[in-house]
Amino acid sequence: MIVLVDMDSVLADFEAGFLARLREKHPELPSIPLGQRVTFKVREQYVPLFGDYFGEIIKSIETENGFFRALPAVAGSIEAVLEIAKKNDVFITSSPLKEQKYSAPEKYEWIGINIGAEWKQRLILTYDKTLVKGDILIDDKPEIAGLAKPPQWEQVLIDWPYNRHVNGKRRINRDWSDWKEILPELV
Amino acid sequence: MIVLVDMDSVLADFEAGFLARLREKHPELPSIPLGQRVTFKVREQYVPLFGDYFGEIIKSIETENGFFRALPAVAGSIEAVLEIAKKNDVFITSSPLKEQKYSAPEKYEWIGINIGAEWKQRLILTYDKTLVKGDILIDDKPEIAGLAKPPQWEQVLIDWPYNRHVNGKRRINRDWSDWKEILPELV
Repeated sequence: MIVLVDMDSVLADFEAGFLARLREKHPELPSIPLGQRVTFKVREQYVPLFGDYFGEIIKSIETENGFFRALPAVAGSIEAVLEIAKKNDVFITSSPLKEQKYSAPEKYEWIGINIGAEWKQRLILTYDKTLVKGDILIDDKPEIAGLAKPPQWEQVLIDWPYNRHVNGKRRINRDWSDWKEILPELV
Repeated sequence: MIVLVDMDSVLADFEAGFLARLREKHPELPSIPLGQRVTFKVREQYVPLFGDYFGEIIKSIETENGFFRALPAVAGSIEAVLEIAKKNDVFITSSPLKEQKYSAPEKYEWIGINIGAEWKQRLILTYDKTLVKGDILIDDKPEIAGLAKPPQWEQVLIDWPYNRHVNGKRRINRDWSDWKEILPELV
């Protein structure tokens, strides 16, 4: 099978990296613990809670040289993906920020650092994942829309508070601990 | 229809940009006029002709900060793509260099400069184009292989000396002047 795997908050812990950088760079500002992050995008929760000025603060962190490169790996994710890749064709599908200057190349770098240099060839950067051929897409985004309706893949969620309202999709723990039970066809 | 369009030597004139930069940076070195470029990759012709040292010279030009951003547009290509996009869904599919640091983000920049900022959303960076859904792929590469065999799209060539040996594929002039005759289904 062809398995597509999203990057941010699935392999690369964007949420943890953002929170750590926010607290480091702006210790005087409020922050939201990971367990309470209930919107898909950081700004959708921070800006209404704390004010418009947070938009610029978020942008300045996300677009920083080195922010993506330094994101920690989601615990359990790399081991799971390497095991899935033994019997399946795995590709990593990710949408860079609108400011691609660091976000795009650092996604390749992150893969080289955290999975292996040969895996850089497996990264597909796209703003429309419905155009990518696959059987399963493992992604934390609640709904994934695009030109191909319906997409040919089945979306499987990585569980986060901000996608708990979604019903009818298979769901893997955030630490990937139950992927073999949830996706037995990949074992 | 979904039309995928390659970038290097199809929209962005990689060959012209490389030749100009080579002559500018190394006026003492030999160079190959565009009409005599008979291999798909620059190094496949330069290195056997002029020696191994040319490999490093080519790499240093291709990976330069600003090289991709400054490539000229292929004459006729942007007008053709904008017209095709009136009646079709167009996406730009491109493989960055293995050194993605400038090549990946500058492909987005190039599109913003030469086509329009909203077109950046239509760029798909992938090393395997057979995984991208489409009806037609306009690409200068003689053979395009990947995981999906056969790909679902039909490849249409942009004519270059290095792909003249390919038979059985529709072919558009390098200046796109005959695209409406060759691809009437897109008009």
